Amino acid sequence: MPIQPRVLKGFRDYLPAQMIPRARMIARIREVFESFGFLPLETPTLEYAEILLGKYGQDAEKLLYRFTDHGERDVCMRYDLTVPLARVVAQYGDLPMPFKRYQISPVWRGENTGKGRYREFYQCDVDIVGSGSLLSDCECVWVDYLVMTSLGLSNFEIHLSNRKLLDGLAQWLGDLETKRLPEVYRTIDKLPTAGPDAVKQMLAGLGLSDAQVAKVFQFLDLKGTPEEVLGKLAPWFAEIPAGATGIQEMRTLLTLIDGAGIPRSHIHLDLSIARGLDYYTGTVFETFLTDLPHLGSVMSGGRYDGLIGFFAGRDLPAVGISVGLDRLFSGLEELGKVDRALSTAQMLMTQMDAALLPLYLKTAGELRHHGLRVEMYHQADKLGKQLQYADKRGIPLAVIIGSDEAARGVAQVKLLAEKRQDEVPLSSLAAWLVDQIKGSSASASPAPGRAR
Amino acid sequence: MPIQPRVLKGFRDYLPAQMIPRARMIARIREVFESFGFLPLETPTLEYAEILLGKYGQDAEKLLYRFTDHGERDVCMRYDLTVPLARVVAQYGDLPMPFKRYQISPVWRGENTGKGRYREFYQCDVDIVGSGSLLSDCECVWVDYLVMTSLGLSNFEIHLSNRKLLDGLAQWLGDLETKRLPEVYRTIDKLPTAGPDAVKQMLAGLGLSDAQVAKVFQFLDLKGTPEEVLGKLAPWFAEIPAGATGIQEMRTLLTLIDGAGIPRSHIHLDLSIARGLDYYTGTVFETFLTDLPHLGSVMSGGRYDGLIGFFAGRDLPAVGISVGLDRLFSGLEELGKVDRALSTAQMLMTQMDAALLPLYLKTAGELRHHGLRVEMYHQADKLGKQLQYADKRGIPLAVIIGSDEAARGVAQVKLLAEKRQDEVPLSSLAAWLVDQIKGSSASASPAPGRAR
Repeated sequence: MPIQPRVLKGFRDYLPAQMIPRARMIARIREVFESFGFLPLETPTLEYAEILLGKYGQDAEKLLYRFTDHGERDVCMRYDLTVPLARVVAQYGDLPMPFKRYQISPVWRGENTGKGRYREFYQCDVDIVGSGSLLSDCECVWVDYLVMTSLGLSNFEIHLSNRKLLDGLAQWLGDLETKRLPEVYRTIDKLPTAGPDAVKQMLAGLGLSDAQVAKVFQFLDLKGTPEEVLGKLAPWFAEIPAGATGIQEMRTLLTLIDGAGIPRSHIHLDLSIARGLDYYTGTVFETFLTDLPHLGSVMSGGRYDGLIGFFAGRDLPAVGISVGLDRLFSGLEELGKVDRALSTAQMLMTQMDAALLPLYLKTAGELRHHGLRVEMYHQADKLGKQLQYADKRGIPLAVIIGSDEAARGVAQVKLLAEKRQDEVPLSSLAAWLVDQIKGSSASASPAPGRAR
Repeated sequence: MPIQPRVLKGFRDYLPAQMIPRARMIARIREVFESFGFLPLETPTLEYAEILLGKYGQDAEKLLYRFTDHGERDVCMRYDLTVPLARVVAQYGDLPMPFKRYQISPVWRGENTGKGRYREFYQCDVDIVGSGSLLSDCECVWVDYLVMTSLGLSNFEIHLSNRKLLDGLAQWLGDLETKRLPEVYRTIDKLPTAGPDAVKQMLAGLGLSDAQVAKVFQFLDLKGTPEEVLGKLAPWFAEIPAGATGIQEMRTLLTLIDGAGIPRSHIHLDLSIARGLDYYTGTVFETFLTDLPHLGSVMSGGRYDGLIGFFAGRDLPAVGISVGLDRLFSGLEELGKVDRALSTAQMLMTQMDAALLPLYLKTAGELRHHGLRVEMYHQADKLGKQLQYADKRGIPLAVIIGSDEAARGVAQVKLLAEKRQDEVPLSSLAAWLVDQIKGSSASASPAPGRAR
């Protein structure tokens, strides 16, 4: 019985038509990261289970791909890039601080699959470890803004809040057990998707009184510019140090954001965002595409001053932001902002006569030497078939040298889209094609990795 | 008890100092691949076990990372990139042929670890599926040559042979069971590492007579130019079609290699190379660094006309070549051909006065807008500490704006290596720095992904 060729549920092949624009998108994101001096890091796919266990919470732990390896070790596949970063910082004590790193790697979660929800997907993170400065929080927001704009997006909102404002809220409500706080925060975080009625019910279910639930919504319903909202919060938090610090941090962050020239139209104070994971301690951010409200956040992160220190055994504040690569890519696709490209080659060197192969080889070599990307057709099929091959792959140009052309030292260059044909001397072919590529729409299809 | 931060045996962290040159090397290799029109593909890390089992041989199978997933599926981690390619070609029946793809991805093997031998390592493959043309074999050799030269290597040898020459040998020996052939080939393949005496003994152990062993070495000891060696083989293989075809294919391949302008000094006919895996059927190639003979092959591959068709249920010839990324990188390191780079940033924006943060932010933004990579120092430490930070990371320039400079609308630019300092008006700072970077050694540290 033959084996059925198939992929596992929640896993995907990236065929060239997806890979080419995806690689281009990743190259742009990497350029933004490096323009801030973030350094690349890569950690192993497998880690000792004990490194990952106990960091994500019980629900998340069930999703780990965990098994016993050849040496009877208890191992897990990478679940995110943050815990491995914490392990790296603890393991290499001599990393110069602050350590600004990025990592773009797949992670694995045995989740229920669904629209845009996979078991293998890429994370794409920047983090600044060892800096408690709000300038570092601002840099994360700035990376967010530049990633969005570098991908051609203009309708997006960066939502900001601060865990300390939620801590202030909790104390303002009074009479709440500290250990319930993570649940309360996670419930508040569900407001945009679950709606106010469901959130009210869930909060009551967590033991909040009617008066407390009302105060939560008084807090969430504050309206106005960020400064106005913070101004309304200030008297409530006058006697609550955590809340007052949250207000002060948010005010400073907004000043830095203005200094960086990030337009306020993209910046929203959103007191409902809390981020699911327990380890956030300060600023939190999420990013939404205005035209695709149901897509969810495409870039998120925040400050987490406890996690890295937990591993390293010393105080190491940290802040970071992560691009939801798959979700963002599907958003760009839906908005028609993904350049389709089926080919990396800029031209096809056709094969008219097998006896002329040495000339085709020599010519292709010269063109490549001039930085051109040249695919050679593999055999002397009929020209129509070869041109169809180029057309099907979106290769814009075909170079044709028959025995007549070879004798005269020229090539025919066919521009497939325009059905135009030019005769060009072989001696100036490379220069002619370089000009052609520069000036034509072919330049709209740069290779992945050379995005600009 | 605190958790000990550590990585699994055979696994590695790539810290920035390794990642930066490594990413640059991969970018160069990718450019070569794309200059031939190879298309990027990415397949999942996990595959159904039945897809991988039975393709690599029993010894290899023991090395598979295999486990049962959450859904009780029998799964394996990727062992190479060839079998997943075969699965893809079978699964998507409408891929236009020939399908020229590259994939650069990690693979996992539970091997004994050793020098340059890891359990997680990258493979970096190009393959041409659906072309039986020797032009495709030639393209693989050409990719090999250009990858080597693009990495600054000039002392390397590409060793060529053809499985059909070995099939010819087997028939010329006479009286050999077909099923023993793979073992005989694998034994011959060990000649460079094990030496002639050990190989003679192993061949005798496989049941070859003294006369047969002598003939094997008559074959292996042939000397001369490739054409001379083929000329000596011709009479032996006159009545052996497989061998005669092998000679003809090798002659044609050599003509194409000449046509491509690959210097013969890099090309060696080496009848001992057979490649370990069973699935090779025609041309085989391996690549050695002349200055590091003990390193082993850094790029290898060959033609395998059976494997893809096995999955797809149709005749699909294929040829490919794979870069041994880790081995090649360690070779480049040993030869001093790896540019050390500790930083992605081209300059540090220092912080002299926290009150001037908006000006620092604005200036950093303008510089980035001009394509410069600017790291901002995170807090207003003493200038000496900030310059030490830049120095430690190899950031070549520091931009300094104190309150005096701010009042006069200028910046001090410190060239750390030269201990030089220039005063530049803020209005022309970006242009000045772009010129500086272009002209200075700082341009020798391009970001990964922008290798040229």
